[in-house]
Amino acid sequence: MELLKQKILADGQVRAGNIVKVDNFLNHQIDIKLMNEIGKEFRRRFPEKVTKVLTIEASGIGVATITAQYFDYAPVLFAKKTVTKNLDGEVYTSKVRSFTRDIVFDIKVAKKFLDKEDKVLIIDDFLAEGQALLGLIDIVNQAGATLTGCGIVIEKGFQAGGKLIRSKGVHVESLAIIDNIDDGAIKFRD
Amino acid sequence: MELLKQKILADGQVRAGNIVKVDNFLNHQIDIKLMNEIGKEFRRRFPEKVTKVLTIEASGIGVATITAQYFDYAPVLFAKKTVTKNLDGEVYTSKVRSFTRDIVFDIKVAKKFLDKEDKVLIIDDFLAEGQALLGLIDIVNQAGATLTGCGIVIEKGFQAGGKLIRSKGVHVESLAIIDNIDDGAIKFRD
Repeated sequence: MELLKQKILADGQVRAGNIVKVDNFLNHQIDIKLMNEIGKEFRRRFPEKVTKVLTIEASGIGVATITAQYFDYAPVLFAKKTVTKNLDGEVYTSKVRSFTRDIVFDIKVAKKFLDKEDKVLIIDDFLAEGQALLGLIDIVNQAGATLTGCGIVIEKGFQAGGKLIRSKGVHVESLAIIDNIDDGAIKFRD
Repeated sequence: MELLKQKILADGQVRAGNIVKVDNFLNHQIDIKLMNEIGKEFRRRFPEKVTKVLTIEASGIGVATITAQYFDYAPVLFAKKTVTKNLDGEVYTSKVRSFTRDIVFDIKVAKKFLDKEDKVLIIDDFLAEGQALLGLIDIVNQAGATLTGCGIVIEKGFQAGGKLIRSKGVHVESLAIIDNIDDGAIKFRD
């Protein structure tokens, strides 16, 4: 998606450890016009019927919410990372490993919101090692729902997640794939 | 807002401790059509020019993002509850006490996204004791920005937050105010 790539080049900042900071339009401050263009692009790439848009707190929620408008206002469901008082009842749980923080945490979705009739589009802001995405896919499978695919805003193509998840036959669409960062310069996959 | 009140009566569930669960349309699963109606209603109640919509992760993000579309696509900025690798640089910090969890935590907003030129609308899903809202207002004040007001989806009118924050001269608009819960029955303020 050319508009997104231009935005990353103009406003993204490369930090030590190949971290690309896009906190000025994606994961701290959110550019609402850009999110609408992203939502339209996901619709173009996933023309299938979708009954639920699934994401994970916190920074996936913004893009998922705007995107859902382009999928006939399908409800958004966001997996929670911690047990809270407001999530009682039966839940689907999956364990997610965070490489950056070197911890394993549970993600949870209430069972009552996802079942075998659902056609699920997973939306997230980033794909790197793919652990969060694997957890979400696991939850879709536990529910017996149909996974339409995964829509990702930015994929770090030099990390293992994209290849791993595509190798499972999952339809992954990343709107910008960063193949490498060379001396601070971001190179996108064509 | 009548549509919202009807939704709370139809789908909200009252739990022990006067907790109203609205996880089927607001804070776990999100009703995107309803969020759009809520966004329009906030615009009606806050006709002023707004340059930033400020909220706090995680469940404020959905409603803030949809709402921002009705404020000329103003950027959404969400305060983070924990220090993360992706939030470096200078930050505004405020301490927030959680009564439900009996802890104090920091909320943070990068300074580069908020300054004295900004006209800020704060959006959140719930107002109870008002501690999170006070933290957000504190950050707006630290930035020297103008606070347009606070738009809340559901206010628990029997808790102290709404009165406390209005007493400071802040324009608070809550789309549904629950005045009491009597034997499981929700009573709204007129």
